[in-house]
Amino acid sequence: MSDTRWLNQVAWDEQGLVPAIAQDYESGEVLMFAWMNREALEQTAASGEAVYWSRSRRKLWHKGEESGHIQRVHELRIDCDNDVVLLRIEQVGGIACHTGRRSCFFQKYLTDEGWQTVDGVLKDPAAIYGKAKQDGEHNHD
Amino acid sequence: MSDTRWLNQVAWDEQGLVPAIAQDYESGEVLMFAWMNREALEQTAASGEAVYWSRSRRKLWHKGEESGHIQRVHELRIDCDNDVVLLRIEQVGGIACHTGRRSCFFQKYLTDEGWQTVDGVLKDPAAIYGKAKQDGEHNHD
Repeated sequence: MSDTRWLNQVAWDEQGLVPAIAQDYESGEVLMFAWMNREALEQTAASGEAVYWSRSRRKLWHKGEESGHIQRVHELRIDCDNDVVLLRIEQVGGIACHTGRRSCFFQKYLTDEGWQTVDGVLKDPAAIYGKAKQDGEHNHD
Repeated sequence: MSDTRWLNQVAWDEQGLVPAIAQDYESGEVLMFAWMNREALEQTAASGEAVYWSRSRRKLWHKGEESGHIQRVHELRIDCDNDVVLLRIEQVGGIACHTGRRSCFFQKYLTDEGWQTVDGVLKDPAAIYGKAKQDGEHNHD
């Protein structure tokens, strides 16, 4: 589609964003949640790799740009209200979370115990991003 | 956990909400996306059935309260930033979307065609909610 009708059809919120859910295209695991602005969604569709909008850094964020853990988009969907995007992706490197875990949803609620970490770290974030980066601010990549 | 530490640990946004993703606990399908406030999350954990916060109606919304399509919660997770909740649920009636479809994410992006509806209606919404309701405002249940 050379025109931009499909981008206009998205019900962007007052900040010009939509929530985006990234799901493994094969296993169905929900790997992460992020936000997209119009440019991020356009670049995602054009490149076939997930591009988000980092609200904390206020810039486009090509997922995996530092870690190499890019996300290849197999399918892009939108919900009934046109205000949430679902990406069915292939997670390169098998790690979506900046903590070095496969999925960002590694904490499970247990009655009487609250949120408990139930999934392990697959790779030390220091090895993924380098020590210097780890000493700095929260890493989203 | 009789105390409310786990609720305090959630990074509620400036409106006191967190995004919530509902996923089929067996197939992994992402069925819908909604929001929760503190009370909604507390009731969800206590009752074992999904309770959301309806931003449009500004009230708690026990999913399925009108349709009967409640969501039985098998697992409740939270992400690395404590600001997104994932519910692994059993969708009673097999229909999560107010359009009568299994999932709200029934529109797929196709190059040159934009968003296209690719999943069918399983049950007429008029039969789910009754004719009167359908003539009214957008139905979230």
